[in-house]
Amino acid sequence: MTTASTYAGLQSVIWASTHLDLLDQRLLPGEVVYLELRTAEGVWDAIKHLAVRGAPAIGIAAAYGVVLGSRDTEGTTEQWLSAVNQAAEHLATSRPTAVNLFWALDRMKARAASLVADGADLAHCKQVLLDDAIAIQSEDEETCRLIGEHALELFEDGMGVLTHCNAGGLATAKYGTALSPFYLAQEKGMNLKVFADETRPVLQGARLTAFELQQAGVDVTLICDNMAGMVMSKGWINAVIVGTDRVAANGDVANKIGTYSVAVLAKAHGIPFYVACPLSTIDLNTPNGDLIPIEERHAEEITEAFGKRTAPEGVKVFNPAFDVTPNDFVTAIITEKGIVKPPYQVNLQKLFQHD
Amino acid sequence: MTTASTYAGLQSVIWASTHLDLLDQRLLPGEVVYLELRTAEGVWDAIKHLAVRGAPAIGIAAAYGVVLGSRDTEGTTEQWLSAVNQAAEHLATSRPTAVNLFWALDRMKARAASLVADGADLAHCKQVLLDDAIAIQSEDEETCRLIGEHALELFEDGMGVLTHCNAGGLATAKYGTALSPFYLAQEKGMNLKVFADETRPVLQGARLTAFELQQAGVDVTLICDNMAGMVMSKGWINAVIVGTDRVAANGDVANKIGTYSVAVLAKAHGIPFYVACPLSTIDLNTPNGDLIPIEERHAEEITEAFGKRTAPEGVKVFNPAFDVTPNDFVTAIITEKGIVKPPYQVNLQKLFQHD
Repeated sequence: MTTASTYAGLQSVIWASTHLDLLDQRLLPGEVVYLELRTAEGVWDAIKHLAVRGAPAIGIAAAYGVVLGSRDTEGTTEQWLSAVNQAAEHLATSRPTAVNLFWALDRMKARAASLVADGADLAHCKQVLLDDAIAIQSEDEETCRLIGEHALELFEDGMGVLTHCNAGGLATAKYGTALSPFYLAQEKGMNLKVFADETRPVLQGARLTAFELQQAGVDVTLICDNMAGMVMSKGWINAVIVGTDRVAANGDVANKIGTYSVAVLAKAHGIPFYVACPLSTIDLNTPNGDLIPIEERHAEEITEAFGKRTAPEGVKVFNPAFDVTPNDFVTAIITEKGIVKPPYQVNLQKLFQHD
Repeated sequence: MTTASTYAGLQSVIWASTHLDLLDQRLLPGEVVYLELRTAEGVWDAIKHLAVRGAPAIGIAAAYGVVLGSRDTEGTTEQWLSAVNQAAEHLATSRPTAVNLFWALDRMKARAASLVADGADLAHCKQVLLDDAIAIQSEDEETCRLIGEHALELFEDGMGVLTHCNAGGLATAKYGTALSPFYLAQEKGMNLKVFADETRPVLQGARLTAFELQQAGVDVTLICDNMAGMVMSKGWINAVIVGTDRVAANGDVANKIGTYSVAVLAKAHGIPFYVACPLSTIDLNTPNGDLIPIEERHAEEITEAFGKRTAPEGVKVFNPAFDVTPNDFVTAIITEKGIVKPPYQVNLQKLFQHD
């Protein structure tokens, strides 16, 4: 079903039969280097030290890590199961707050246990476990592709589209969420003019979004965050699309700091504001955005983010990592199951009821 | 008339009887170093190589430069006048587009010529010329102080006020324009909580505004530009105040890039948006903001502003240095002659008619 052969973006996780090739995102945008990982320990290290980032990409890498940590085990299938569990438990310690990581590891452990319980032979166990890691990756790719296809229904040839932060192919199997329609547009020969906010303080827009779109040959222009309003006022932006870390049941959207400012600016200029995410990001147990905790990060991200001090020593700093965009700024939420419009309180629930 | 004895800010230009002390702003915020300048050539060099910045501060420094370049001349007053003119003409080449620079130099030359024409003796000529440089500085200080006093009428104890870029004491004789009310509030024991946008790409907010307010003991919190919306939504901001590079006859305001975004965000949150400037910044010959040329600067300010590349090589960049905020976003314009409210087309002209 996926027809990704023309995908022009870089893949962050590639299974290479004998090992895992993992794009070292710490070196971007300066260098494109793949780590050749042959052990679970190598994958643990890559996750721990941020060579791989993006919740889906981390989950996928961890699934392959379990394969690498158990494939050389000989003896009984019980011994193999023990190696699987040991690898999974170790990998779970690499990034303690990563939900997708635990989800992928639990899925791998359950599959291994079920195979052994069913009396499968060792070679079959190993093959099916690898197939499951590949499935986790291809399911994510399919989800991202579907999000992109639905999003693309909202865009027309020649449009200018602004995005904030990085919800791109680097963070997922392929395509990303908010960036997916740009790759699909390119596959279809449709021209979109993307504007990427650099996204202070950590510059994911400059380092990752501008990088991966440029690599793929997508027309992308980098701007500072404070230029978004001016660019909108010039009439260059026909739509905004961003990813999200969590959508509340009422459609409030938590995303990288600065997203709310972009949403307010979009509304003031009559520009639609779209949010792209898989169903797994929609949290019906969180009634509204006020209940989403906003992490504050250390001041040095602002005062010396580039290895050079750019603000006075000891200055007071406010550095929230995320903000919440209230649902009335959100024109539509785009998932793998289609485009959801207000009222979100009702329509987000419907996504899950018909599952 | 000025009662600046309690001014807690750093002065960028200080006449020290035997020489000029000039704050080297290139080293801020890391180091506070004053250059001891004893010659016109030294002042030329400081202006040329950006040790001093801010149009009023440059004009003041240049005026003292003329004094330094002529004070050791002996002989006839004509010989002295020749030294004055030579110093002024040389200083005029230090920053070819700086209007305040030419204005100050022309004033010094005219004063010297008039003294010589009136037959004053050499010692008197030298003293009056020095007095005139001091007057240029004190007039600027008085203008800034009056702007601050008028602005302060709009603020109340405990208010949160957001500013963008640096329109501060460092750029003027003292006080600055947009930052003047913060210094005056402090003199009066009034507490304002200032939020400073860091102001990408060149970070004048982080490097200069946060620095000079912190030095003076003003309560200042540094944020990234994209956090302004979130901070407003929390109810922390009661007013915005910024400086300007040019105000058109209809009240459209050109200022550092990002000002327009702040103005739109302020309006969306029901927060007043104030612009502080001397009358000399209001250009009745420019009918509206569309006619103000917007300089585009080089991409490297965004892609490698801090000595480190933060965006991919060759990426397309849009880097406007300024934007224009239409008059309907401007709650009031605060000048040394008082607070001007809409309709600006009429009320800005009145400022000059009653001169």
